[in-house]
Amino acid sequence: MFTFKINHTNDRARLGQYFTPHGIINTPAFIPCGTKGVVKTLEIRDLHDLGVEIMLSNTYHLTIRPGAEAIKKWEGLHRWMGWDKPLLTDSGGFQVFSLNATRKIDDQGVEFKSPLNGTRHYFTPESVMQIQEKLGADIIMAFDECADGNSDKAYAKKAMERTHKWAKQCQKENSKLQKLRALNGQFPQALFPIIQGVIYEDLRIESTKFMADLDLPGIAIGGLSVGEKKEDMYRVLDIIYPHLPNDKIHYLMGVGSPEDLVEGVARGIDLFDCVLPTRLARHGAFWTETGRYNIKNKKFEQELMPLAENCTCSTCKSCSCSYIRHLFMEKEITALRLLSIHNLHFLLTLVHEIRVQIGKGNFENFRQEFHNQFLNLK
Amino acid sequence: MFTFKINHTNDRARLGQYFTPHGIINTPAFIPCGTKGVVKTLEIRDLHDLGVEIMLSNTYHLTIRPGAEAIKKWEGLHRWMGWDKPLLTDSGGFQVFSLNATRKIDDQGVEFKSPLNGTRHYFTPESVMQIQEKLGADIIMAFDECADGNSDKAYAKKAMERTHKWAKQCQKENSKLQKLRALNGQFPQALFPIIQGVIYEDLRIESTKFMADLDLPGIAIGGLSVGEKKEDMYRVLDIIYPHLPNDKIHYLMGVGSPEDLVEGVARGIDLFDCVLPTRLARHGAFWTETGRYNIKNKKFEQELMPLAENCTCSTCKSCSCSYIRHLFMEKEITALRLLSIHNLHFLLTLVHEIRVQIGKGNFENFRQEFHNQFLNLK
Repeated sequence: MFTFKINHTNDRARLGQYFTPHGIINTPAFIPCGTKGVVKTLEIRDLHDLGVEIMLSNTYHLTIRPGAEAIKKWEGLHRWMGWDKPLLTDSGGFQVFSLNATRKIDDQGVEFKSPLNGTRHYFTPESVMQIQEKLGADIIMAFDECADGNSDKAYAKKAMERTHKWAKQCQKENSKLQKLRALNGQFPQALFPIIQGVIYEDLRIESTKFMADLDLPGIAIGGLSVGEKKEDMYRVLDIIYPHLPNDKIHYLMGVGSPEDLVEGVARGIDLFDCVLPTRLARHGAFWTETGRYNIKNKKFEQELMPLAENCTCSTCKSCSCSYIRHLFMEKEITALRLLSIHNLHFLLTLVHEIRVQIGKGNFENFRQEFHNQFLNLK
Repeated sequence: MFTFKINHTNDRARLGQYFTPHGIINTPAFIPCGTKGVVKTLEIRDLHDLGVEIMLSNTYHLTIRPGAEAIKKWEGLHRWMGWDKPLLTDSGGFQVFSLNATRKIDDQGVEFKSPLNGTRHYFTPESVMQIQEKLGADIIMAFDECADGNSDKAYAKKAMERTHKWAKQCQKENSKLQKLRALNGQFPQALFPIIQGVIYEDLRIESTKFMADLDLPGIAIGGLSVGEKKEDMYRVLDIIYPHLPNDKIHYLMGVGSPEDLVEGVARGIDLFDCVLPTRLARHGAFWTETGRYNIKNKKFEQELMPLAENCTCSTCKSCSCSYIRHLFMEKEITALRLLSIHNLHFLLTLVHEIRVQIGKGNFENFRQEFHNQFLNLK
């Protein structure tokens, strides 16, 4: 279980399969975010229709409500949501560090207030492992301190060192928990550590080596796409690549624009997650092969073609731009759903195409053509 | 075309079929409301999944945006929405008379301001026929003055007489328009007149006779469920029944609670429409065989059963009350969709069951059992 099989490589790009107790993930893969237990505007059955192979949900949000104890009682997150395929929960690190005003952090962990009712919560590496054990996802994440992309080096170092200390604690706590799960005949869970270090090359290399040494069944890169420049993100990925364990699955957290997916794959990334496709949809934005557009644009009022030519998503098979724009302008909820389906389908089709191209040994050509179409011609 | 075939009767309840250019409607039938061109929170494909046989949309809302000319240019409302089954548009009468502050009415018609941008619009019997011809629905409605359920008799009479005058004008204008459609090889449309008269028995009888005399391919009852007591509505239906043309389809507008559907059928009604199932859903309310409930109720937090035992809707097949309540409390749009699907399925199943029971000659027993369960035991 949790083996990663690499079937083809094109330079640093990898075509692989990750084996989990709830099924196989074909990589490179994009993970839609079901932050609070649902991908916004969609149902679980829509994810099946879209061919989603892995979904993400959030420890932070699920702790606030309904709580991990409740979900455990209800036979775990998979069962409660009705999702029977691979599932990943993040550690809540990113979320609690975003609560600038209301959290208190020290070496032991983070205290924060529920935005719902002011209840105090305390996240430690151990408690975050215990919560994720209760939620029962296939892949669980170590508790990390996610410094933003503009942090100075002193803070970046401090946050990284704390993340390292916590990763060790997470690993220890998780070993205990997994032994108990095994005794209870429960599915095992894979813990991934998270590399930090902001945009500082020496820190990133140090963090990558540290996390690689933990020898866990996957490795994640956090703290990117959080305010730094795109070039800095690509540079960090380039610099850490030689230090990533080659036989482990590489997960770039919180990244999900089409161009970043392509560039991430070119730098050895296998897994991506992001709220972008559904968040953009709720603002009227959508992707096509030639870039990003917004349905609010007046030109779409008279457009009887679908959002994207040749798109095979359920939205494009049945709705014109004109109709979707009308629903969006009338604040009909259905419009958000139609655009969310299209955007998710776009990213899922993109990673599918990337897999096909790596399989053919043609990824580098594909990458160039993609950028020519998507970035330059729009 | 537009023939109404009655296959069985149980006292006043009728099992029938209405033939339209876009297909057959099995009656009694419930018509979901796609006010602005969409049933709120749903897609057109959801209506197919639910077995919907006829959908409604609103002349008033579609005139405000995107406009009838635009929809005509886009090959009509059916094509634009992607709905290929029977479609009904109402005349906008109900909506413009609800705009108390901003409309001016005289015998010629109603002037009103667009709430969107203040643009002035003028609805006359003729213009409302022209608009509905452009929209291209199968069933179109005469322009009426919908007095509310608490109107005094003097106003009720005045509004009724104006509605009669306008119905004649609508019939005349529509005859012209239908001849043009026939010349152009377009599908014919059926115009239904609307009986008014508030809760005054003599007015209602007078209005029913007047509208029956127009000999149009269906007849509607308007101005009920607009503020009067339930007993008054049932009394009006009882009083007009002997004067309704027996061989025509009878459409009770704006009525859609489960108990009113059953009582309407018992009084010879064949068609119903209402925003209730989706509006209730957006407030967290849902129906089961034992009455109406609200998902916000704390007791549903721990409930792992579906919304209704034995319900076969897609929501009940995959989601527990606990999960739906969580999504609703978290303001996830998906919750509104899940509840909308359930409520629509509930009403559509109810009219299906009514049809089965009429076919068996068992409607009266069914009616009693339904009320015992739905009204008394809740």
